Amino acid sequence: MSTVSLGHIFLYETMGTALLLLLGCGVVATAILKGSKGENGGWLLINFGWGLGVFVGVYVAFPTGAHLNPAVTVSQWMMGNISAKQALIYFCGEFLGAFIGAVLAWAAFREHFDAEADPGKKLGVFSTGPAIRTPVWNIITEIIATFVLIFWILMSGGTPASIGPLGVALVVVGIGASLGGPTGYAINPARDLGPRVAHALLPIKGKGSSDWSYSWIPVVAPVIGAILATLLFKATDAADLIKAVKA
Amino acid sequence: MSTVSLGHIFLYETMGTALLLLLGCGVVATAILKGSKGENGGWLLINFGWGLGVFVGVYVAFPTGAHLNPAVTVSQWMMGNISAKQALIYFCGEFLGAFIGAVLAWAAFREHFDAEADPGKKLGVFSTGPAIRTPVWNIITEIIATFVLIFWILMSGGTPASIGPLGVALVVVGIGASLGGPTGYAINPARDLGPRVAHALLPIKGKGSSDWSYSWIPVVAPVIGAILATLLFKATDAADLIKAVKA
Amino acid sequence: MSTVSLGHIFLYETMGTALLLLLGCGVVATAILKGSKGENGGWLLINFGWGLGVFVGVYVAFPTGAHLNPAVTVSQWMMGNISAKQALIYFCGEFLGAFIGAVLAWAAFREHFDAEADPGKKLGVFSTGPAIRTPVWNIITEIIATFVLIFWILMSGGTPASIGPLGVALVVVGIGASLGGPTGYAINPARDLGPRVAHALLPIKGKGSSDWSYSWIPVVAPVIGAILATLLFKATDAADLIKAVKA
Amino acid sequence: MSTVSLGHIFLYETMGTALLLLLGCGVVATAILKGSKGENGGWLLINFGWGLGVFVGVYVAFPTGAHLNPAVTVSQWMMGNISAKQALIYFCGEFLGAFIGAVLAWAAFREHFDAEADPGKKLGVFSTGPAIRTPVWNIITEIIATFVLIFWILMSGGTPASIGPLGVALVVVGIGASLGGPTGYAINPARDLGPRVAHALLPIKGKGSSDWSYSWIPVVAPVIGAILATLLFKATDAADLIKAVKA
Repeated sequence: MSTVSLGHIFLYETMGTALLLLLGCGVVATAILKGSKGENGGWLLINFGWGLGVFVGVYVAFPTGAHLNPAVTVSQWMMGNISAKQALIYFCGEFLGAFIGAVLAWAAFREHFDAEADPGKKLGVFSTGPAIRTPVWNIITEIIATFVLIFWILMSGGTPASIGPLGVALVVVGIGASLGGPTGYAINPARDLGPRVAHALLPIKGKGSSDWSYSWIPVVAPVIGAILATLLFKATDAADLIKAVKA
Repeated sequence: MSTVSLGHIFLYETMGTALLLLLGCGVVATAILKGSKGENGGWLLINFGWGLGVFVGVYVAFPTGAHLNPAVTVSQWMMGNISAKQALIYFCGEFLGAFIGAVLAWAAFREHFDAEADPGKKLGVFSTGPAIRTPVWNIITEIIATFVLIFWILMSGGTPASIGPLGVALVVVGIGASLGGPTGYAINPARDLGPRVAHALLPIKGKGSSDWSYSWIPVVAPVIGAILATLLFKATDAADLIKAVKA
Repeated sequence: MSTVSLGHIFLYETMGTALLLLLGCGVVATAILKGSKGENGGWLLINFGWGLGVFVGVYVAFPTGAHLNPAVTVSQWMMGNISAKQALIYFCGEFLGAFIGAVLAWAAFREHFDAEADPGKKLGVFSTGPAIRTPVWNIITEIIATFVLIFWILMSGGTPASIGPLGVALVVVGIGASLGGPTGYAINPARDLGPRVAHALLPIKGKGSSDWSYSWIPVVAPVIGAILATLLFKATDAADLIKAVKA
Repeated sequence: MSTVSLGHIFLYETMGTALLLLLGCGVVATAILKGSKGENGGWLLINFGWGLGVFVGVYVAFPTGAHLNPAVTVSQWMMGNISAKQALIYFCGEFLGAFIGAVLAWAAFREHFDAEADPGKKLGVFSTGPAIRTPVWNIITEIIATFVLIFWILMSGGTPASIGPLGVALVVVGIGASLGGPTGYAINPARDLGPRVAHALLPIKGKGSSDWSYSWIPVVAPVIGAILATLLFKATDAADLIKAVKA
């Protein structure tokens, strides 16, 4: 079990998640807000922006395992790698960091929030929303997408390669490219809820609703996806086999 | 010869190929289905989605060699790395996994299949089809594209680099970018046939034909490409030279 | 403290920064100048061009630490890794290299500068400018973007991975994708001022103003961002923790 | 000096360059020929296709150093790493391979060459041509672009990183993105001349001129760029410094 101190967990997860959200919300702002130099930059731009946000965030939070995502924390707790108390501190850092990152992204794009007329785009910089609103299928999409992330993280321990945090960054690029179409791929409760709170609190000119009616889906569904991935990983003898392959 | 158990081969190849197809079919759905946030995302988006599908699939199936593709399995069997019985189990896992992955991609994009009117696009999420239908040239294109994949896999063993599964993922991005224009680059019998069966069986609203008349080409041509690549590899003394360079 | 000679610092930083700017200004020229084969290539193209400019520049200036950026030099001096005299030589090489690189990019695109009618695009190849001109928010954007770069550089020392200069190259791709929308991401005083001087001096057909009224912002703001990142890095016990994690 | 046999040099350089050109010509065909699934795929797609062509080619020709480019061979000969006789064999393999690769790309896209009406696009799949035809500036552009490639190759030996052939592949992506706008970045005499001969010989429906009046520029200019880069590398004490940094 991890012996990193609670203070370090809180500090590094807050910083790492803040950078993830700064770059993640930032790339959406770059791609959709009026007058941005990257306006209409396209889906692959958004996928790379989020993936490289993960890249930066994982480097910064590396000393504490770089969860950056409550779904990861739930999985690590199920695996017995962290204690319940540590998990709680991870959650706090993740949500606080996500909030801070969204605020910073708003500051970096302040003038473009003013120039943009569509309140839907303003919210879109902060939080995810479904292309077609049907809760049950939106939930299924988020479960499947998060399952891929968590299952990859669990399995990747057994694969020799020295690209480090680039691995998970590329997986997030891929999940976004492939499974982001229907819901905008939250795959991380903190990534969605932290910025949504920021959207509600910040003095954004001409902002509309923070869409609280959808807000529970990108919180609950990723956790379900994480639990399913961890259960499947445990059900197969993957952990044992990985050990055997490495030995 | 590989000593991995048949059960492990079946389990990991099924899981890995399922993830490959989930992300691969998913990126096509993201790029072409009506209402997707990544609609009209372009060819490079599709190439990266498939390449990162390979990235994820290879990590997950790493304990069993991560074939994920009957063309790879044929080549490895010709090289004497696996037995005929093992090859058969690889095939089973690959086709079953491809089927499962396509079903999951359909579930993730359920509402967009409903919203999309064009049955051609619906089939395009599952299976490949030629831009211009002329069997002999479609076969040649698939042979050439699969040759590149298999020959690279055979040669890459002699090149020191520690990027691991990222290598083959990038090769698949490149093959798609460069040789996917005419036929949509199946380069993998399971990748095409498994999802085609899924398309035929699933209750997809307003679906059209599963285009069985084309279905044999992306099964047969990749195998021919794999055989040719393996024969060329054996004809040159590449294996010996690689050993000499490494020593 | 670094023991590399002043002559080497000057030589390699000049060469590395020249290559960074050659490729960086070049990709903007490719993407926006009339008649270029990559005209309208989009924001992600520009982001990759600058990121790979960093990639090339860091390899070339590797013998002297590859600062390529006065903001990096300020941070390294605050960390006690270089002396004040060395810092001065780094600055000289960085600004001279940036000037040379911009001149080379102009030479490579000479005919397209002639063909292009818009003087704003011509300046845009050389230096950054704000999408919406409001100094205080432009400064904030540049501070935030440079903060990400410098903080990542400081933290990355503790993360095992062997991708080398690819790491910082990807971070620059990400910063550009995510935070470049409002100001075009100078994040480097030399990157902006050196080419601006080149723009003022070169005999560019139909060129307009070099926009000196904005020129101080991409010089001052990145330095502030670098100072803040270095102070935060020192305020947390990151350096100590990194040592502990590695030991 | 390299002790690899002449036969191996010929074999591997032919195979590697053939794969480079197959993927390189292929991505242009994908992006511009009528009816291709990737039609209008954009400049970044083309850059990645060529870069990943290098990636594949370098792996395949790794046993013999993977020159794939007479400009590299000239530089390696100037550095004393290969003999004049070896250089000659490298040239033969490179040009033959480039010819074969272009023929294979034509075969893969046979139906799209028939469907395409514009003879300029057909030639564009094979060989480079200037966006604005002014020999002196076209030459300067090719010299600068090739200088970057060769200088990076020479300097990269001193930079620890274990990404292997991915490094030079990314440099080629970057050179294309940044410096390809004016001339289409030959940066390799074989890459241009081999396919031009193929264009002249192949029975391509409705083909036009092979533009021999331009053909000498992408042969001569890259060699000049390679010579300049090698001279600068030798003039600085880079080789010695690299040794010192590594020791």
